[in-house]
Amino acid sequence: MPKPNPRHPDFPIPGGPEKRAKSWRAEGLLRLMENVLAVGEAPDKLIVYAALGKAARSWPAHDAIVRTLSEMDEDQTLIIQSGKPVGLLKTSAAAPMVIMANCNIVGQWAKAEVFYDLERKGLICWGGLTAGAWQYIGSQGVIQGTYEIFMRIAERRFNGSLKGRFILTAGLGGMGGAQPLAGRMAGAAILCIDIDPKRAEMRKEIGFLDEIAPDLDTALKMIEEAKAEGRATSIALIGNAAEIYPEIAARGIVPDIVTDQTSAHDLVYGYVPAGYDLDRVRRLRDQNPDELIEGGRKSIARHVAAMLEFQQKGAEVFDNGNLIRTQAKQGGIENAFDIPIFTEAYLRPLFARAIGPFRWMALSGEADDIAKIDDLVLQMFPDNKIVTNWIKLARENVPFEGLPARIAWLGHGERTALARAVNKMVADGTLAGPVAFSRDHLDAGAMAHPNIMTENMRDGSDAIADWPLLDAMTLCASGADLVAVHSGGGGYAGYMTSAGVTVIADGTDEADARLDHALTNDTSLGVIRYADAGYEDALDEAAKKQIGHIRL
Amino acid sequence: MPKPNPRHPDFPIPGGPEKRAKSWRAEGLLRLMENVLAVGEAPDKLIVYAALGKAARSWPAHDAIVRTLSEMDEDQTLIIQSGKPVGLLKTSAAAPMVIMANCNIVGQWAKAEVFYDLERKGLICWGGLTAGAWQYIGSQGVIQGTYEIFMRIAERRFNGSLKGRFILTAGLGGMGGAQPLAGRMAGAAILCIDIDPKRAEMRKEIGFLDEIAPDLDTALKMIEEAKAEGRATSIALIGNAAEIYPEIAARGIVPDIVTDQTSAHDLVYGYVPAGYDLDRVRRLRDQNPDELIEGGRKSIARHVAAMLEFQQKGAEVFDNGNLIRTQAKQGGIENAFDIPIFTEAYLRPLFARAIGPFRWMALSGEADDIAKIDDLVLQMFPDNKIVTNWIKLARENVPFEGLPARIAWLGHGERTALARAVNKMVADGTLAGPVAFSRDHLDAGAMAHPNIMTENMRDGSDAIADWPLLDAMTLCASGADLVAVHSGGGGYAGYMTSAGVTVIADGTDEADARLDHALTNDTSLGVIRYADAGYEDALDEAAKKQIGHIRL
Ligand SMILES: NC(=O)c1ccc[n+]([C@@H]2O[C@H](COP(=O)([O-])OP(=O)(O)OC[C@H]3O[C@@H](n4cnc5c(N)ncnc54)[C@H](O)[C@@H]3O)[C@@H](O)[C@H]2O)c1
Ligand SMILES: NC(=O)c1ccc[n+]([C@@H]2O[C@H](COP(=O)([O-])OP(=O)(O)OC[C@H]3O[C@@H](n4cnc5c(N)ncnc54)[C@H](O)[C@@H]3O)[C@@H](O)[C@H]2O)c1
Repeated sequence: MPKPNPRHPDFPIPGGPEKRAKSWRAEGLLRLMENVLAVGEAPDKLIVYAALGKAARSWPAHDAIVRTLSEMDEDQTLIIQSGKPVGLLKTSAAAPMVIMANCNIVGQWAKAEVFYDLERKGLICWGGLTAGAWQYIGSQGVIQGTYEIFMRIAERRFNGSLKGRFILTAGLGGMGGAQPLAGRMAGAAILCIDIDPKRAEMRKEIGFLDEIAPDLDTALKMIEEAKAEGRATSIALIGNAAEIYPEIAARGIVPDIVTDQTSAHDLVYGYVPAGYDLDRVRRLRDQNPDELIEGGRKSIARHVAAMLEFQQKGAEVFDNGNLIRTQAKQGGIENAFDIPIFTEAYLRPLFARAIGPFRWMALSGEADDIAKIDDLVLQMFPDNKIVTNWIKLARENVPFEGLPARIAWLGHGERTALARAVNKMVADGTLAGPVAFSRDHLDAGAMAHPNIMTENMRDGSDAIADWPLLDAMTLCASGADLVAVHSGGGGYAGYMTSAGVTVIADGTDEADARLDHALTNDTSLGVIRYADAGYEDALDEAAKKQIGHIRL
Repeated sequence: MPKPNPRHPDFPIPGGPEKRAKSWRAEGLLRLMENVLAVGEAPDKLIVYAALGKAARSWPAHDAIVRTLSEMDEDQTLIIQSGKPVGLLKTSAAAPMVIMANCNIVGQWAKAEVFYDLERKGLICWGGLTAGAWQYIGSQGVIQGTYEIFMRIAERRFNGSLKGRFILTAGLGGMGGAQPLAGRMAGAAILCIDIDPKRAEMRKEIGFLDEIAPDLDTALKMIEEAKAEGRATSIALIGNAAEIYPEIAARGIVPDIVTDQTSAHDLVYGYVPAGYDLDRVRRLRDQNPDELIEGGRKSIARHVAAMLEFQQKGAEVFDNGNLIRTQAKQGGIENAFDIPIFTEAYLRPLFARAIGPFRWMALSGEADDIAKIDDLVLQMFPDNKIVTNWIKLARENVPFEGLPARIAWLGHGERTALARAVNKMVADGTLAGPVAFSRDHLDAGAMAHPNIMTENMRDGSDAIADWPLLDAMTLCASGADLVAVHSGGGGYAGYMTSAGVTVIADGTDEADARLDHALTNDTSLGVIRYADAGYEDALDEAAKKQIGHIRL
């Protein structure tokens, strides 16, 4: 039985013991597609997040996907091209149920304007990372990522704690909305700027945000008080970050940590330039996108100039993956890349061991299934401090959106072991239903993104896109249930390529083999990618865990 | 027992009944790698064709590939990243033995200069199409392609025959060297210009070229005589096409057909600008590549201006896939694209039915195996005029290079049926050894190349690269033995993405299933790609052959 979804009443949250499809593998993927819409930003337009990231190309495409998933056999494979189902082929029960390639454009054509043109013609759609591959689980998906970044900074600069520290950021959208909660969980006082009051209200409603301040003075006073008391809190302020960041700097205030998660990657459908209101921006998207692009670049230049000023005055400033430095550089800020990218600055040692944003979703819809898996994780990995800390925090602080789900940064071997143990719990009836395992595309072997994931790789291999393709192909040969290759759309067009994977633990022996092969090979390739680039952590991990790395 | 290779004595031609690897699947792939070197242009530098197209990234990479193929089990998969083996993973016996991704670069970075930089650092190498994927079989591979183009032109413009017709072209390299033979087989008098006397001599030696003319006057006289007698002949002339084409035009001579296959795609390592000799060009590659790029563009502008002049005067002029129009446009020839690309002009109706350059190689090294398969083809497809005509011509005219091999433009269903029948002949001992089945990457579902393969697609989907990725992923899930995703390097950087596949018919039941799934799904996707773009031929083929096309 689906559950009501107050946020989007027409998009109930899937669940229950009855399957509509012939297999749980197909039913599970169907529920995951329903779920990304249920927790998405504008499901009536099929939009999941980041302004343009869609679950399917069009409603007819969506309906044909539902129909095909419902009817297909386990030895067939559904082929999806940029959100549109194009073929149902005979393969074998060991092959994926769904193979997709979303938004891949030949290099010299991989530019925002070509993307928009192809999108207008209905020939392509952008899948974001986890939107088009039906792996998005609401803001929770990025909470841990943001939280772990804050904690790495705490360890390096603030004696392990952000108590009494001030984080300034912006953007409360589909992804950025995780920031206030992650900041509060990390113990800090966090101020989040967003131009859209609705976004802030929504985050408050679902428990991700404590308060909305009426103006800057009040907001800064609330932050000051929380700092003084050492109290964790999250506060939103409605306004334009490109105006408010410089204003805070002008007052001589220096936050401890500064970042940004406005949709700076997309100057037409995302970022709101300083001096523009939302209505005007919406009109200009059709009428004069060039004005938005120009205005956006200018605005981002001011925005980033303030971030650089904070950095010079001692704040820990980083780019959280929204291409804001790239835009600022195009807008004339030559030293925009003095701001480091979060991956290189904080997460690379984890990725080198293929530790990354693994996740699982209870297809039953029962929160209790996740609670049982939480217990299992704590029991299986008592020495993994990052994960035990996170699971304890998350079960207390992170409300479920849509299907109950959990994310945890697990690495090679751990992911496989957990998934196989969960598959047993599905088999013996401990859990109410099957569980889907997946991960973010921002994972060790899965992404080439020279301005985010692979910036400043030790060997200079930042721009090489072979790795995500090898990952996707290997996953197709390793029994994964869904495999996707995504490239950037909108402002990300030409900036990245990534691979996504989902495997359904339906309690069968076949699922056990699938989880074993697919998850093990996925993290193996992650370690190999970093070993090949010369990272010692990866070479160590490959040797210690006997990963089949070939070293010349 | 390997056979001696007079052209490259250090690179014997593989063959014989003894395998070094544990399985014929691995042994077959090993022999195919040896074979592309044996028939390649500069095997000591691992170069197979097109100036930079390599079989492996480096000699240590090559040696590690040989070692791994020799030792691996059938339930393992060797992962190759741009010609370098990076991992050996546990998969299953249904998975490919080899998965490779060669020269894929993130879109905004996919440019010639980035490629050269990554190549210099040893981080990448270009696999051409069939070089890096070990599917090249010498010039024969492109002979039929060129021949079929000539025949389509004959049908449309010259009452079905090129008797007494004059074809002018240039380039006698690894691919272009097929032109004189294809032209003679089509019944024409063909004149081929190349700047490098060695290339011409080599083509003559192996029987692809009749004569080398000492100068332009003589060459034109020889052509005139052959035309008058209605005699098919092929003549080479040493010189620069950018000088000789305009000179021929200036004399008021208009050939019937004009094209070009110099390595115009690569202005540094390929094309020789007018006024430069080979030695100077070789020196400048290191010392001043920019001079070559500039000189090349100017030269190509003259070269293409002459081609346009021929076109205006009534000649059938086409681009044969070397990016010469793109370069000419950058060199100032605004109307360079008035010259059509061969795919759109002549081959699209074939591709819409997934009819394309299928091929097979006798791993035994025995020419007799190919003869027996020739007989089988004639017997299985008596009504397929293109193929029966070709097989008869080819067995008389096309000398084998390296492993005995045959190419034939077969389509959906035909490829699968033939391969399965051959697998039976391997099983019952009719053939001396296993047979490898493969195809060019220039195949219906396998290539996105907006200036060659997918130029002017009916729906405007030229630049969408989802299709080759879907093809590669599907092939990995369909039991193919080798699957490769290639993108362009050198001057092709950012211009294309393609998928390659090889399946070994070792006579087993497993091979029967593999050939069935992989070849059927490969051509299914080919038909679906064209059906999705709205081509009636493809929609008809999909309906007639019950291909699983999903039509919205
Ligand atoms: N860590 C990562 O790698 C990672 C993960 C997910 C998303 N991202 C990136 O983070 C960005 C945000 O993603 P999202 O899904 O939240 O996007 P979104 O479009 O859902 O939300 C963007 C938010 O920014 C606000 N905004 C736009 N311009 C503003 C301005 N000038 N001042 C203040 N607020 C402004 C919008 O009102 C909106 O609420 C994107 O660029 C996304 O691609 C990065
Ligand atoms: N139909 C297709 O799609 C298809 C198939 C294969 C190759 N190609 C393209 O065709 C071109 C040739 O491929 P190849 O493998 O033969 O390359 P190659 O480098 O082996 O040979 C190129 C030849 O051109 C000659 N040459 C260079 N500049 C010249 C000039 N100005 N005048 C006369 N001769 C000149 C060289 O001496 C050499 O013999 C490439 O661009 C290749 O990518 C197209």
